[in-house]
Amino acid sequence: MEMNYVLNSMWVLVAAILVFLMHAGFAMVEVGFTQSKNAVNIIMKNFITVSIGVIGFFVVGYGIMYGKNFFNLFGTDGFMLVNVPKTYAGISFEVFFFFQAIFAATCATIVSGAMAERTKFTSYIIFCIVSTTLIYPLIGHWIWGDGFLGQLGFRDFAGGTAVHAVGGFAAFVGAKLVGARDGKYKKGKVNAIPGHNIPLGALGVLILWFGWFGFNPGSTLDITSPSTSHAAITTLLGGAAATSSSLIFSTFRYKKPDAGLTLNGALAGLVGVTAGASMISYIGAIVIGLIAGIVMILSVEYIDTKLRIDDPVGAISVHGVCGTLGTIAVGLFAIDEGLLYGGGFKLLGIQILGVLICAATVILLSYITFISIKKTVGLRVEPHEEIYGLDTIEHGISAYIDL
Amino acid sequence: MEMNYVLNSMWVLVAAILVFLMHAGFAMVEVGFTQSKNAVNIIMKNFITVSIGVIGFFVVGYGIMYGKNFFNLFGTDGFMLVNVPKTYAGISFEVFFFFQAIFAATCATIVSGAMAERTKFTSYIIFCIVSTTLIYPLIGHWIWGDGFLGQLGFRDFAGGTAVHAVGGFAAFVGAKLVGARDGKYKKGKVNAIPGHNIPLGALGVLILWFGWFGFNPGSTLDITSPSTSHAAITTLLGGAAATSSSLIFSTFRYKKPDAGLTLNGALAGLVGVTAGASMISYIGAIVIGLIAGIVMILSVEYIDTKLRIDDPVGAISVHGVCGTLGTIAVGLFAIDEGLLYGGGFKLLGIQILGVLICAATVILLSYITFISIKKTVGLRVEPHEEIYGLDTIEHGISAYIDL
Amino acid sequence: MEMNYVLNSMWVLVAAILVFLMHAGFAMVEVGFTQSKNAVNIIMKNFITVSIGVIGFFVVGYGIMYGKNFFNLFGTDGFMLVNVPKTYAGISFEVFFFFQAIFAATCATIVSGAMAERTKFTSYIIFCIVSTTLIYPLIGHWIWGDGFLGQLGFRDFAGGTAVHAVGGFAAFVGAKLVGARDGKYKKGKVNAIPGHNIPLGALGVLILWFGWFGFNPGSTLDITSPSTSHAAITTLLGGAAATSSSLIFSTFRYKKPDAGLTLNGALAGLVGVTAGASMISYIGAIVIGLIAGIVMILSVEYIDTKLRIDDPVGAISVHGVCGTLGTIAVGLFAIDEGLLYGGGFKLLGIQILGVLICAATVILLSYITFISIKKTVGLRVEPHEEIYGLDTIEHGISAYIDL
Repeated sequence: MEMNYVLNSMWVLVAAILVFLMHAGFAMVEVGFTQSKNAVNIIMKNFITVSIGVIGFFVVGYGIMYGKNFFNLFGTDGFMLVNVPKTYAGISFEVFFFFQAIFAATCATIVSGAMAERTKFTSYIIFCIVSTTLIYPLIGHWIWGDGFLGQLGFRDFAGGTAVHAVGGFAAFVGAKLVGARDGKYKKGKVNAIPGHNIPLGALGVLILWFGWFGFNPGSTLDITSPSTSHAAITTLLGGAAATSSSLIFSTFRYKKPDAGLTLNGALAGLVGVTAGASMISYIGAIVIGLIAGIVMILSVEYIDTKLRIDDPVGAISVHGVCGTLGTIAVGLFAIDEGLLYGGGFKLLGIQILGVLICAATVILLSYITFISIKKTVGLRVEPHEEIYGLDTIEHGISAYIDL
Repeated sequence: MEMNYVLNSMWVLVAAILVFLMHAGFAMVEVGFTQSKNAVNIIMKNFITVSIGVIGFFVVGYGIMYGKNFFNLFGTDGFMLVNVPKTYAGISFEVFFFFQAIFAATCATIVSGAMAERTKFTSYIIFCIVSTTLIYPLIGHWIWGDGFLGQLGFRDFAGGTAVHAVGGFAAFVGAKLVGARDGKYKKGKVNAIPGHNIPLGALGVLILWFGWFGFNPGSTLDITSPSTSHAAITTLLGGAAATSSSLIFSTFRYKKPDAGLTLNGALAGLVGVTAGASMISYIGAIVIGLIAGIVMILSVEYIDTKLRIDDPVGAISVHGVCGTLGTIAVGLFAIDEGLLYGGGFKLLGIQILGVLICAATVILLSYITFISIKKTVGLRVEPHEEIYGLDTIEHGISAYIDL
Repeated sequence: MEMNYVLNSMWVLVAAILVFLMHAGFAMVEVGFTQSKNAVNIIMKNFITVSIGVIGFFVVGYGIMYGKNFFNLFGTDGFMLVNVPKTYAGISFEVFFFFQAIFAATCATIVSGAMAERTKFTSYIIFCIVSTTLIYPLIGHWIWGDGFLGQLGFRDFAGGTAVHAVGGFAAFVGAKLVGARDGKYKKGKVNAIPGHNIPLGALGVLILWFGWFGFNPGSTLDITSPSTSHAAITTLLGGAAATSSSLIFSTFRYKKPDAGLTLNGALAGLVGVTAGASMISYIGAIVIGLIAGIVMILSVEYIDTKLRIDDPVGAISVHGVCGTLGTIAVGLFAIDEGLLYGGGFKLLGIQILGVLICAATVILLSYITFISIKKTVGLRVEPHEEIYGLDTIEHGISAYIDL
């Protein structure tokens, strides 16, 4: 119907604009949680993502994700938006593409955080292109673009797996392969390298939360659906619950209300409810949030001290672990078919299977990508660059002067 | 009507999202206008507000505010949103709740600014819970939730009293009871303790102004009403006029264009037009703004030097005084019943009476709350914490490293 | 039609709110790209713009721009919005005014960046008033308000000339007349004076980009038009392409990926597609963006080293040069009448003629304005103020303490 077309196109356009600002949020979180000597570099990587990444998705990625279905595996047309329809899912095609393009960039940017402070600039550019043209669109096709996971009944409302876990899995591989920052693990000790600008990091988290109200509620693509407002409430409650549980859990575990973990707690809860935001109850959102806030902290600790993978901003735990958690939680908490609502094990099984397939695929593809980069242009900056900071050596400036 | 339901729900959803970002605005204003050694602490308090505060409003506050009316005094059901309707005031109930929950958090956050830099973390958490579960919902019920003030004809369009003045009154009690910061009043002298990051504070003010365009125009809950766009213009003009008058007045009074007072001037004007944004003319908005910008400065000076209450960010003057001013101004400037438009003294009398009742109630309830906190867990940090800064002592980190 | 009235009014209201946040973006860009000792001053100028500037447009400017047409030259009524219609261009008049008022302020704020760090505070206030009451509304009337340029067939979709180039031309005159900052050109050498806070500058650019999705798509004033979503995509692709080309071109030209130029590259692309956002193809937007990103760098270099005009934030190149470029590009890339699409030279000729007329007019009017200011209150601060910084001398505070 014409009126619904206009209403829904307007809503998704506004939602996409809100999601766009998440890139400011990611930039500020990544800047704030890393060292001042690499602040310009991390910003440049965020600008790469919204420029080269977006163009990569326009030229290739969209076609792979939503083009003509090839054996439920990937799309095969629509590159550079040639021969695309005028309308998609009842809204303006252009609005749909806009929303999708910002999502693609979001997935890539997660990786830049985990590999911050020691990754070569050109290496990130290459990975970013691979991510927005191949890895993200492939998984996206499987889940949202008529691919086999969607057909199997796998549910991922707004990208708990398709965006966040995919970004987190690639971040895991990247952070592992590039190695820890200088001084992080020294003489058997694990050294904390604290972020340099907590106010900016906090601003980033709140901007991300703001954008998430476009990310989740916008994912219905339908303002007339009750799921849209429902997703707004679960996004609010899930984020609030996880912030609370991270605050309380960090206070008991580390004897102080930890700022970094509390801020990441908000993000953990937001990621946690993303897969199921339209399908879970208020209490479901709160429970998932509470768990996500705690699991994120345990995951950060485990990855940092046991796996000894150096993830400066906690992206693997926030996006990878909590994205996985939230996707599986759909099998438990979905009010129609979830296990806890009497739906049996079927949906839960599909969710677990689906996330495992995505994890294996993303880990494999990003491993191939990063190893190829490592063997050609190299993955890591020179030791002296890392010590003096990427900003002065790679970009010739300092982030701050005379403060 | 179905279409109006969708249109208005969409509009209020967008407005609520805009209001959410005001918490980033508050965080940046409070960080920017206080000392760097307490920046992490003030941020943590803002995160408490949008997490524990929001959950408190979900569990208890909403029911008190909008539940089944008990003798026009408070609501008695709807706790945890059990048995709430699907629709409220012609829009999606969930959208309505979302909008309300962010408002509740806004009211609480005002207090954290006035008590910054010396209040115990747990004390603020307790107050925040009391504020979002009891104090704000009670007054909110009286004004907006079928309570006796609304029935009396008291008018508060978007929360000049219900949100801002209530927050400001509690801030007044809290700042008084917790006492001044170390060094503020020494040897009979009043010492200025300047904010440490004016650019962040300025960013916060502009973000708040941005969110105010959701706060005021969104409060019609009706995009088809001419009041919605009218409130946007009065919000723009009121803020602009107050910024101008603060700038000019501070220049004459203190021989320089004072940055802190000009930035707070914008907020004073925005608070000033909040109660009447839909009911006053353009010129009315400008006049109220001009007055609010000057009154705020006189109030800051009076509270600081005469009352000797230490309010680091000027929250009492901005929210309490200008919220009161704007609420009373409705009795003068409302184009239908205001005194200046020939409406006589009736509305003016009701407005004055209403704001007095709210002031007395909030001051009493917050006094009881803060005194109870003081006698149990204590209200104020240890002197050495205050001197070294709350960040390193309470949270174990610094807001900034190597800038 | 009633429903379209509501839909379009809602859309433009939301768009105007997004554009409002661009003032936070401008403030952060200008703060970040200048020296820390002048950060408070530049912020104050941004607050002047959204306060005194907005009121100037309300009182006088709107009438000049959209009042009753006097020989296609300027408007003659509607001052203080007296006797304005209820509806304009099919939307709520108040929404239309709101959108216009923020545009007027945007045009003025461009100048404050180019003249930063040495211009007298009162001089900027005077210029800001002239800009929002006279210069911008006059050109605006010619292009958008029934004036002769619009009647001639000159096309400027969202203000590539009317807002950006006009701002850029005035910035050129202002920066030339106020002279270079102390130490900028010394002993024949051109010295770079780097910005002091790149993270804030980057945040500003991303906020501006966010607001641009209101600025361009909102300019259709019609959510039912396919041009609205089309403008969103061209805004995304144009900004992305220019960021990419600036990054690559600066890397080759200066042997490093330059942060300041890459960030300005995003803005150059956004300005570049503004005039034609609704009329150019995706590839057109990318080509214009790629060119804008490179031309901006060459322009910055030329203005800095050949013309020796000191423009601290690159506003002349970003807004003046790329605004002009984008306006002329409409004559080449407009898919209906552009030269490259077989439309012949007519539109191209009109575009060139139009932008020349605007340039000549703005340069003349701003020259008269700045010369008058220079001869009366003076344009430039005292040398010692500039050396110690405008913040401590003019405003009595520092932007940052104890970082």
